[in-house]
Amino acid sequence: MAEARSDVVGIGNAIVDVLAHADEKFLVKHNLAKGAMTLIDDDRAAALYDAMAPAVECSGGSAANTIACLASLGGDGAFIGKVNHDQLGDIFRHDIRSLGITFETEPSTDETQTARCLIFVTPDAERTMQTFLGASASLGPADVNPDIIAAAKVTYLEGYLWDPPSAKQAFIEAADLAHEADRLVSLSLSDPFCVDRYRDEFRDLVEQHIDVVFANEDEILSLYQVDTFDDALQHVRGYCKIAALTRSEKGSVIISGEEVHVIDAEKVEQVVDTTGAGDAYAAGFLYGLTQGKPLDVCGRLGGIASAEVISHFGARPETPLNELAAAKGL
Amino acid sequence: MAEARSDVVGIGNAIVDVLAHADEKFLVKHNLAKGAMTLIDDDRAAALYDAMAPAVECSGGSAANTIACLASLGGDGAFIGKVNHDQLGDIFRHDIRSLGITFETEPSTDETQTARCLIFVTPDAERTMQTFLGASASLGPADVNPDIIAAAKVTYLEGYLWDPPSAKQAFIEAADLAHEADRLVSLSLSDPFCVDRYRDEFRDLVEQHIDVVFANEDEILSLYQVDTFDDALQHVRGYCKIAALTRSEKGSVIISGEEVHVIDAEKVEQVVDTTGAGDAYAAGFLYGLTQGKPLDVCGRLGGIASAEVISHFGARPETPLNELAAAKGL
Repeated sequence: MAEARSDVVGIGNAIVDVLAHADEKFLVKHNLAKGAMTLIDDDRAAALYDAMAPAVECSGGSAANTIACLASLGGDGAFIGKVNHDQLGDIFRHDIRSLGITFETEPSTDETQTARCLIFVTPDAERTMQTFLGASASLGPADVNPDIIAAAKVTYLEGYLWDPPSAKQAFIEAADLAHEADRLVSLSLSDPFCVDRYRDEFRDLVEQHIDVVFANEDEILSLYQVDTFDDALQHVRGYCKIAALTRSEKGSVIISGEEVHVIDAEKVEQVVDTTGAGDAYAAGFLYGLTQGKPLDVCGRLGGIASAEVISHFGARPETPLNELAAAKGL
Repeated sequence: MAEARSDVVGIGNAIVDVLAHADEKFLVKHNLAKGAMTLIDDDRAAALYDAMAPAVECSGGSAANTIACLASLGGDGAFIGKVNHDQLGDIFRHDIRSLGITFETEPSTDETQTARCLIFVTPDAERTMQTFLGASASLGPADVNPDIIAAAKVTYLEGYLWDPPSAKQAFIEAADLAHEADRLVSLSLSDPFCVDRYRDEFRDLVEQHIDVVFANEDEILSLYQVDTFDDALQHVRGYCKIAALTRSEKGSVIISGEEVHVIDAEKVEQVVDTTGAGDAYAAGFLYGLTQGKPLDVCGRLGGIASAEVISHFGARPETPLNELAAAKGL
């Protein structure tokens, strides 16, 4: 196994987030599934945007957020994802490259615009996401640079990639390339509705291709169609080297063979916006893992990253995460 | 005089802000005039953006921010300014229209992109602005809709409009139209360097066209080339019906003929980013004025709006200003 040149390469949808406050009535009126990620077409995106309150724009995308947090912790990251050659694409590229992250995927040049995710944040800090995939859906196997995969200790994939058909192929291709190079492959289940859409495929995937799986409670219950967290935990421990299961304010549980760690959540003064909480957790965890830290430390790093991201609007960290980790002695 | 259908129409540069943290070293390295607004061309904008940290995008523009704050206070606003028919233009249009503000200026369709302002926020919360005017510079007299001007109690102009040549004509045309309809004309001096560039023209303007002038201490000292705030105050009181002079943490002073009010600043827990402080003050003041409030109340409303905007990143309010004003009994 050649020496790794980077810690984690993320493959995911390359998205610019459009964030605004909304109340519960707005969600009902526009028939939005609270807390979920729903795919929408261009017309629906335009209509919802018309109805949306004044917004701010920040780079997003689940795996891209994870790599951004990893970089903020001091890790070496790379990202593969498709934008268009438009202004939102420029914003996405700037934000990820300015963190020192390798991002070389060729932008598309057709009429399909860069993906955007309309995020409605309700007063309870829950986020409801409506995604127009646009250019992101054209990611395919040709975009997976084998050198970048082989050079990274971990290839990290977001479950949302299972939605665009050619991205699914890119996903499998990347996992195979990583394993050929004796690297780890990691997956985030992303969303319980996403798991619902692809349950059988996700189960096969987790059993056959994934070494490190991230899921929250809803997602792992949905994957195995069980009622209790403990049942889900007993299922997943048979298949993956490592499973890191997040439970919001209850912290996280990490399982690896016989090893189990229950990690308390970090205290957060005020939860403002939960967008990106899971992405940040995965970043902290994978940063620890690629630095050779014990699993409980990986979980604590995940909790620290997650706590920062939910304390403000938007999914990318505002305070350097390496400073926060250092302040906790990690 | 026909009954007014709106409170304030703002005319200004239609800009999307690109905000990021930067340290003092960055400003020195890139030769940026701290605290000022500097106009830059496309190449310089691209080079600076490359060097900039990860950013967030929010609609900006001085007069546009003022109208956005006015709407948040419950006022009826309109805005005139030029964007391009591009993604940043769509963002600007969405954010202003979603506040119920009339914004009907035809976007340009040529190659010149929507204006953007790269804003570098240093740890002392000071903002340093580098503006690529782009499409905004093509605003001209033809964009000034006489009906909208005649229908508004106040026509509000930003000093920055003096930079693009055709906007200057639009500016004078709007002032004349407003006075023909027996309305008030208001001006913000915008920036001490802007005053430096156009001192004689600004003095003529203030003497001949402006009823309500907004300026901060640096700007009013620069306008009259005097050394003390009191000297500046004695100069301006001879020319304008009302002058509202802001002094950062020292609050503001309002002069109207023999009437003088000294208003203390609102307390702010933590000043995060001073971008838009003056714009918000003007909004609160003009909201009070158009509601027929006494001048001291207008000043307090300005202070409340300003305090909200400097307590977070970005120039547009995050908390409805009408609620904050109500909480103070105004």
